[in-house]
Amino acid sequence: MTDAEIQSAILDMGRRARAAAHELVKLSTEQKNSILLAMADELDARQPVILEANAKDLAAASEKGLSKAMIDRLTLDPKRLKAVSDAVREVAALPDPVGETLSAWTRPNGLRITKKRVPIGVIGIIFESRPNVTTDAASLCFKTGNATLLRGGSEAIHSNVALAAALQAGGEKAGLPSDSIQLIPFTDRASVEHMARMDQYLDLIIPRGGKGLIEKVVATARMPVIKHYDGVCHIYVSPAADQDMAVRVILNSKTQKPGVCNALETVLVHRDIAAAFYPKLAAALVEAGVEMRGDTAALPHLGSSAKAAVEEDWKTEYLDLILSLKTVGSLTEAIAHINHYGSHHTDSIITRDRAEAERFMHEVDSAVVLHNASTRFNDGGEFGFGAEIGISTDKLHARGPMGLAELCSYKYLVDGEGQVR
Amino acid sequence: MTDAEIQSAILDMGRRARAAAHELVKLSTEQKNSILLAMADELDARQPVILEANAKDLAAASEKGLSKAMIDRLTLDPKRLKAVSDAVREVAALPDPVGETLSAWTRPNGLRITKKRVPIGVIGIIFESRPNVTTDAASLCFKTGNATLLRGGSEAIHSNVALAAALQAGGEKAGLPSDSIQLIPFTDRASVEHMARMDQYLDLIIPRGGKGLIEKVVATARMPVIKHYDGVCHIYVSPAADQDMAVRVILNSKTQKPGVCNALETVLVHRDIAAAFYPKLAAALVEAGVEMRGDTAALPHLGSSAKAAVEEDWKTEYLDLILSLKTVGSLTEAIAHINHYGSHHTDSIITRDRAEAERFMHEVDSAVVLHNASTRFNDGGEFGFGAEIGISTDKLHARGPMGLAELCSYKYLVDGEGQVR
Repeated sequence: MTDAEIQSAILDMGRRARAAAHELVKLSTEQKNSILLAMADELDARQPVILEANAKDLAAASEKGLSKAMIDRLTLDPKRLKAVSDAVREVAALPDPVGETLSAWTRPNGLRITKKRVPIGVIGIIFESRPNVTTDAASLCFKTGNATLLRGGSEAIHSNVALAAALQAGGEKAGLPSDSIQLIPFTDRASVEHMARMDQYLDLIIPRGGKGLIEKVVATARMPVIKHYDGVCHIYVSPAADQDMAVRVILNSKTQKPGVCNALETVLVHRDIAAAFYPKLAAALVEAGVEMRGDTAALPHLGSSAKAAVEEDWKTEYLDLILSLKTVGSLTEAIAHINHYGSHHTDSIITRDRAEAERFMHEVDSAVVLHNASTRFNDGGEFGFGAEIGISTDKLHARGPMGLAELCSYKYLVDGEGQVR
Repeated sequence: MTDAEIQSAILDMGRRARAAAHELVKLSTEQKNSILLAMADELDARQPVILEANAKDLAAASEKGLSKAMIDRLTLDPKRLKAVSDAVREVAALPDPVGETLSAWTRPNGLRITKKRVPIGVIGIIFESRPNVTTDAASLCFKTGNATLLRGGSEAIHSNVALAAALQAGGEKAGLPSDSIQLIPFTDRASVEHMARMDQYLDLIIPRGGKGLIEKVVATARMPVIKHYDGVCHIYVSPAADQDMAVRVILNSKTQKPGVCNALETVLVHRDIAAAFYPKLAAALVEAGVEMRGDTAALPHLGSSAKAAVEEDWKTEYLDLILSLKTVGSLTEAIAHINHYGSHHTDSIITRDRAEAERFMHEVDSAVVLHNASTRFNDGGEFGFGAEIGISTDKLHARGPMGLAELCSYKYLVDGEGQVR
């Protein structure tokens, strides 16, 4: 196919997604839930076909020499596939945010205004190698009444096609409007650009993947993009901290799952407790196998394994068992460091001083600010949202954990008796 | 100045705006209000200087041969300037949305989560010839704790510089952090592009102007853009309508202020009442001087002055005393026409049938949907918002009238006692 043919095919999918969105608005919560359950059943029924498709992707991946981690992310097996269909069933069980009245009031002229939650319309999801994003994203977008255009990476194309086909076929048995969930079958770079310029049909794009993918979409997109950028997350340990608690919380934030965006990257310690606190923390970090990179005030207290931090360390999301440590002279300095070097994602203070905690949470400009708790709690599940499409680093529309409510827009319904201005 | 120098100057303004935003977060509502009142007083005190600057713009405008309407929009006089400073005082009197608790809950592990409204950060406003946008936008953004970078058109540059200087000087007397309100002194096209790419410093851009300006910003911007596009607004008259009410509401929607985005552009009439209703409506429209463009089913009933509508009419925002009229066979057809040809802005149904009204309001995909009321009510003032920065045609973050709350973001504050995962 030529690029012009690909563009025209993508435009046609967009046009059909828009039409599907107008149909999706008419479904009741019960209809949507029974469609989701039918999708899950079809995923189970098609297990052999899906695993066969996945085997093709895995064979191509070995041939291309992809890393072990990449191949693991790509791999489906009966157990993982059951988890995929169960995740769709869990989405069916979640409360439906669509139709909720957000506020309602009556004007002096008698007009009754109701602000209601409604679907966004058509959402584009651009993702990389994990095939389960196909079913996760499609089920969350569908639950909120949105049509979805999915565009996955080339490594998972056979798996994605098989998964999307199962969702469509299962859903349509239960009344899913056609074209509600479409997988774009093109994996060339230009297809991302065609999607990103199609603002007449796509209301929103969510890129799920690395920084390179997100930046590419941001640079091209004409419609809103919700970004899930890096988490350069901090914990500040105040002189008023419970130091044992600080060690426990830092250890958990850094080591419980180091490869995720809400893992800790930098610890800030007040200089008044440096001599007392750093050795305790260092002992625990060494035991956990964490590499330390300290500033000059920290280094003498961190033991022989610690390295000297350089400027670049303060900006780095290691996603690994590495931690940078910096000594600060005041709460003000800690806040300034976080606002300057951080990524406005997740930051925590350990202190017994309520006023200090409040100032930290007020002045640190991040999506989630915590007091005496692990950074790992910035998570849709931990917040009780039931499911999340990601953790937004944007400040518009959705900030922090993005659940079903954040996949919705709103509209105003105004009821009158012939009022004019 | 070379383009590189202009870019570097704009980047420096962005950097300083970001620093100001961190200071603005610390101001109390009382401090912000007294700063706004001091700004208003300074606008009054500097009346002669501002009018002198405005005279320079007006002289240049005459020289360039700008239209009478353009020159009128540009003109300040003592009365208009008093309205400008009074508008700033009105912003001071509005309730402050910042700091409001949007929701709060406790998790089973004891974590207390509070979702609070906070400033967005740094907002860029790009506007055209009306100098009062300088003070309107700056005061609304400041009230919500945001730093502002303003970039107005070349026609109003002297007025804008004088107005921004008054805001800064007046504000700083009362404790306004420096660089909170900055006017970009460059009016070349490239300066808009430099702003639009500066996503490290600007959290949001709001273009206030014509479609050309908005599209240019959308095509370049790397940060979110809130758009105020056209309003192709409809009224559907059902067979169950009170026809006298329909005539009154249509007349008001079309003629009360034809040049604005919430003015009516197309009327849809059910064919069962075409013969009875069109002549009544046509008589009123002719009397009000409205040009009619009807479909073939409407034309015989509209009288000799009516013209035949062409396909382009259904998509057109006339912003003038022109109305297109189309005959439909059902509510379904009316909804499909509106969702296809409309701009998702404002649409109204006239009917006595409650179920029909509910279906219309549910299925029409517009920011504001009305029942038995004029389209002119899609307005921040009419909604009781006190002030508006515009009417958003976006579905993300802000939809419809955009008041102070829509100039805010939110953050999550999480309070614990050492919780870990």
